[in-house]
Amino acid sequence: MNTFGRKLRLTTFGESHGKAIGCVLDGVPAGLAIDEAFIQSELDRRRPGQSALTTGRKEPDRVEILSGVFEGKSTGTPIAMVIFNTDQKSRDYENVKKLFRPGHADYTYWTKYGIRDYRGGGRSSARETAARVAAGAVAKLMLRELGITVEAGIVEIDGIEAKRCDFEHAKKSPLNALDPEAEKAQEAAVLAAKEAHDSVGGAVLTRAVGVPAGLGEPLYYKLDAILAEAMMGINAAKAVEVGVGAAAARMKGSENNDPITPEGFGSNNSGGILGGISNGDEIYVTTWFKPTPSIFKEQQSLTTEGESIRYKLKGRHDPCVAIRGVIVCEAMMALTLADMALLNMGSRMEHLTKVYSEL
Amino acid sequence: MNTFGRKLRLTTFGESHGKAIGCVLDGVPAGLAIDEAFIQSELDRRRPGQSALTTGRKEPDRVEILSGVFEGKSTGTPIAMVIFNTDQKSRDYENVKKLFRPGHADYTYWTKYGIRDYRGGGRSSARETAARVAAGAVAKLMLRELGITVEAGIVEIDGIEAKRCDFEHAKKSPLNALDPEAEKAQEAAVLAAKEAHDSVGGAVLTRAVGVPAGLGEPLYYKLDAILAEAMMGINAAKAVEVGVGAAAARMKGSENNDPITPEGFGSNNSGGILGGISNGDEIYVTTWFKPTPSIFKEQQSLTTEGESIRYKLKGRHDPCVAIRGVIVCEAMMALTLADMALLNMGSRMEHLTKVYSEL
Amino acid sequence: MNTFGRKLRLTTFGESHGKAIGCVLDGVPAGLAIDEAFIQSELDRRRPGQSALTTGRKEPDRVEILSGVFEGKSTGTPIAMVIFNTDQKSRDYENVKKLFRPGHADYTYWTKYGIRDYRGGGRSSARETAARVAAGAVAKLMLRELGITVEAGIVEIDGIEAKRCDFEHAKKSPLNALDPEAEKAQEAAVLAAKEAHDSVGGAVLTRAVGVPAGLGEPLYYKLDAILAEAMMGINAAKAVEVGVGAAAARMKGSENNDPITPEGFGSNNSGGILGGISNGDEIYVTTWFKPTPSIFKEQQSLTTEGESIRYKLKGRHDPCVAIRGVIVCEAMMALTLADMALLNMGSRMEHLTKVYSEL
Amino acid sequence: MNTFGRKLRLTTFGESHGKAIGCVLDGVPAGLAIDEAFIQSELDRRRPGQSALTTGRKEPDRVEILSGVFEGKSTGTPIAMVIFNTDQKSRDYENVKKLFRPGHADYTYWTKYGIRDYRGGGRSSARETAARVAAGAVAKLMLRELGITVEAGIVEIDGIEAKRCDFEHAKKSPLNALDPEAEKAQEAAVLAAKEAHDSVGGAVLTRAVGVPAGLGEPLYYKLDAILAEAMMGINAAKAVEVGVGAAAARMKGSENNDPITPEGFGSNNSGGILGGISNGDEIYVTTWFKPTPSIFKEQQSLTTEGESIRYKLKGRHDPCVAIRGVIVCEAMMALTLADMALLNMGSRMEHLTKVYSEL
Repeated sequence: MNTFGRKLRLTTFGESHGKAIGCVLDGVPAGLAIDEAFIQSELDRRRPGQSALTTGRKEPDRVEILSGVFEGKSTGTPIAMVIFNTDQKSRDYENVKKLFRPGHADYTYWTKYGIRDYRGGGRSSARETAARVAAGAVAKLMLRELGITVEAGIVEIDGIEAKRCDFEHAKKSPLNALDPEAEKAQEAAVLAAKEAHDSVGGAVLTRAVGVPAGLGEPLYYKLDAILAEAMMGINAAKAVEVGVGAAAARMKGSENNDPITPEGFGSNNSGGILGGISNGDEIYVTTWFKPTPSIFKEQQSLTTEGESIRYKLKGRHDPCVAIRGVIVCEAMMALTLADMALLNMGSRMEHLTKVYSEL
Repeated sequence: MNTFGRKLRLTTFGESHGKAIGCVLDGVPAGLAIDEAFIQSELDRRRPGQSALTTGRKEPDRVEILSGVFEGKSTGTPIAMVIFNTDQKSRDYENVKKLFRPGHADYTYWTKYGIRDYRGGGRSSARETAARVAAGAVAKLMLRELGITVEAGIVEIDGIEAKRCDFEHAKKSPLNALDPEAEKAQEAAVLAAKEAHDSVGGAVLTRAVGVPAGLGEPLYYKLDAILAEAMMGINAAKAVEVGVGAAAARMKGSENNDPITPEGFGSNNSGGILGGISNGDEIYVTTWFKPTPSIFKEQQSLTTEGESIRYKLKGRHDPCVAIRGVIVCEAMMALTLADMALLNMGSRMEHLTKVYSEL
Repeated sequence: MNTFGRKLRLTTFGESHGKAIGCVLDGVPAGLAIDEAFIQSELDRRRPGQSALTTGRKEPDRVEILSGVFEGKSTGTPIAMVIFNTDQKSRDYENVKKLFRPGHADYTYWTKYGIRDYRGGGRSSARETAARVAAGAVAKLMLRELGITVEAGIVEIDGIEAKRCDFEHAKKSPLNALDPEAEKAQEAAVLAAKEAHDSVGGAVLTRAVGVPAGLGEPLYYKLDAILAEAMMGINAAKAVEVGVGAAAARMKGSENNDPITPEGFGSNNSGGILGGISNGDEIYVTTWFKPTPSIFKEQQSLTTEGESIRYKLKGRHDPCVAIRGVIVCEAMMALTLADMALLNMGSRMEHLTKVYSEL
Repeated sequence: MNTFGRKLRLTTFGESHGKAIGCVLDGVPAGLAIDEAFIQSELDRRRPGQSALTTGRKEPDRVEILSGVFEGKSTGTPIAMVIFNTDQKSRDYENVKKLFRPGHADYTYWTKYGIRDYRGGGRSSARETAARVAAGAVAKLMLRELGITVEAGIVEIDGIEAKRCDFEHAKKSPLNALDPEAEKAQEAAVLAAKEAHDSVGGAVLTRAVGVPAGLGEPLYYKLDAILAEAMMGINAAKAVEVGVGAAAARMKGSENNDPITPEGFGSNNSGGILGGISNGDEIYVTTWFKPTPSIFKEQQSLTTEGESIRYKLKGRHDPCVAIRGVIVCEAMMALTLADMALLNMGSRMEHLTKVYSEL
């Protein structure tokens, strides 16, 4: 169950402190130019250790393509990518070997499997998201050919909301902030939490521009439902909103319905999705991240033997996971849309007869 | 793509005004007592026309089991259930034949498929959820054997929040309201919207009690991610929160982390899920529904020929879809948990060796 | 696990002596003309009771379409079809209630599930194949639009081989025989076995003409592998050969390799499939059926209580299941090819960019 | 579509002359002792260059486990294994760059994808089966815990049949031959073909001992159907027989039906499978392999530009692929049975209630 997608299928593997993490991306159509430098640049955006706002761990995160690309192009066969782990300080984790960190998956993995790789969270570490970002970069290359762009940024940190959304600004911001005004206060909140050995939460707005109408497979592979799955499946995500989201529930129908005009939709409360299918408008989704569970304050927990314990965590951790979550949100939306674009190829007989008449 | 679940697999079919709607539920373990009266009673809870709060359509929604049950027990083969449509007033829909209703899937189905059954929304009608409720009832019977209970109720309508959650009250309330105090204002809001030919939104809280730790398949079939998919896939859902949800993003890590004690978790901000796996605590999810898009005020739209049109909808519609959404939320959580319980059966070698040593 | 296919997905349900059998066919592209009379005519070809060569049971097998078709065309939503059971003589099965019929699934269903619908084989009855034939008919309609024809016939019964293959003859033959010469001896063998209260086996040759090169998804959804699964999954099938099949293993490489010329392949030992992908040549597969396990001679078996028993079966049964198996083989090949045609739609970026540039 | 299995899921990647081949095996239950030396020993059995009977290529085939194993045990997370390619003589393939080798997938990959990695067959190379063998070894470790053994050997080469089946002998034989008597003639046939720059075909008998009754998911994930898929999906396989296979079609029902006695089945024509479900008897399957398509005689073919060409292949190739196919057949049967064992865990409510009551 480590696979995401139906036709573009991402399977990831690897533990935080094992030999490597990586993925197999199956279903990429043949003939796509695979820009390795772009894939690496996406990983570089996610890479920690670039500012005081994220963890001090140094992970070079060099991606290596093992298969599926020949003379610069996809061949239609599985693209395997691997990132070997290098900066693992397993000793940092000796003290968590026999206890369950609150807010982490330690307890649930232990209960489910009866065994756990305790080093750095093992499989449940956010480090696994590097594999998603590598695959998401390939999905972005594919979407680019179809005229679709995916981008994301921070809309809220520690309750400080963005008043406007400038996606170009987010690309240059160390915080990936959408609002240059709110950014200062958001940054201060992150640093204050870090100083206090604590952490803060935040929210990421992800959007896709240029999506044609018709993507999404009703009724149980709806575009909005799968985006919700994709986003809620990111480490630390606790809520997902499509379009105006929960705010829609406080509107009247006459306010919330987007009028349809010959020039397009008169508003976009729906977030570009109706009945689980894209309507051609901009798609946007908000994902809410809890504060990093790894904090350096004393906490109450249990040992693996079931004894009560009070302890302080050591190591290096992001004070706000939402910041680097921005790149992961982009990757997951890109993978979802690329999968849906492929799935949609058989929705009408006229498309089949056209493609097959030319084979 | 009309199938939900991996091991307990629900496939639904049918259009609002076709001959029938129904489902095939595959993967129900053999030997489960199938209480047909209970299945019917769940459908009766969802059935419209029971008060002024929901649509005036009369749909008896008699479920008929076609297969998979022998002498009152499941046989391990697919359980097919069908509900024949009876109260279809197709004439009501003649006036929407050539136009796209705002907020509905009319435009997107048309664009995707180039053809649409315009009568009552066809496949995209909320009527399809009756099939989910029938299947959800079977999932509930299965969960009951494992000591798991799923229940839901209204936590908010038109911005009026429940202050407390009494699931027993919700079972008797025509509004499925959790808070007897808030119920009156919520009811008034619904009736006022109906009077004004408009509609209101709302939110449903769904919980599961008695879920053992260990359910959920990391990393791409996480319990929270699939619950998000399940809930966001319900008609009119626009946001899903697990545990405290978006509110977690406004807490510090030290506030949000649930302490672990020998007696259990000291709080339950996580909603009973850590790292995508159940932790043994109560699971709770909030689903936000937009106001019913079917309103009787004049709206701006397009015809299928692309011409601008102003029109008023006719017919019978729920002024607040969240109310009947309560039963659907229960069904989707029950189906998700039953699927996860089955999937979890192979998570440890010791369980396999035990079961196989006894075969 | 009652679903076949990945993009065109057939889910069947129903027991031999339950209320109904049926299927949900999901993934049919929108805009396909659904010729109901053709679907019924395919069922009529499979229907028993038409000659002394098959069972005397009268099953009208009236198919009813419940969903997915609007004004004569597929809408892209699931097509549910149901056949209500009418001529069930459940009394015939009282004597097998407490015993396991040799060669049947009685023992294995009992062991697996601890419960079984013993009437007429229940779920494991060949009656279920009527649902496959109905779905296969829709697949044939779809393939017809792509210029692909699927047909089958008897190549061997009781060791009597066809010397030539006349698919037009098979369509008129009560035996579905490919060779008018061999037919007489084959027919005599069937009737002799029936007279002796015994049964005979046979083999079916199924072919597809007009299949474009490129269908089949390497490496684990190969066209030949899935055809093998499809055919071996038919009741009583025990062997499947692609192209010349086992005979290839007795050739030298220089004999078996099909030369490639500008006019096409110089021979077709491969059966039109190389590396799991269609090569544009005729696809042909041979499926071997064991003799009907239901015979009227005395046999040794066990009761459900584990006691040794000698008994004689009653009821009405085909003396040779291969005869009606012909229609099922056609259905399974049609479903496989239609699924593969849909899956292939995303194999090249150039097809995507073309289709999406026109949306 | 490069994934095999439903609950134990094998995804492979890699090209013959790319950087590496490998696999991700997802769904291995936690707590299984992973014997790396055993996995390597299985690869060593498949490795070429060990005698004059197989290709002279030297492929050390060192497997490296990248994830999913901690302190010698499976953790329940995906097990990624990689084999870096070392002895690639890509120059050998310059002469096939612009032509389609008869009997190979060159033409079909080209037609399907419009691009192909021509070096050594690329993705369609039998080299990929090393990944299956590595995964199959893990499946064997898992089956061993359940008391199930899988083994295989050569039953026929170039028409020379084994008269008896000695699986212990096969383990020591360079030919993997089951019959020490027939072995000499079989070996001579292989060497004669090699001498003549030609190749021969053969057949492999694969069996599983100790399989409990109840494995196999009717109706579309039957044990025999999936074994057929698994075996037919191996490079060069052209026919699959379950039990006595095609020979059953030449028996009478009274001969073919296996009597059921209190001591077990009186015969095993069925190959241990009834109605798609294991019956507790020995499972056996015969897989027929065509002669290696890579021969050194002059052949007729086409260039990628569509011109007729006569050419002779260079390089190093197995004169009989069935020999090394033995190990691959074992791997595929082991993977299939392990998957089925996991899937079966939810077939009865009583197993669920038992396991969950103990959690």
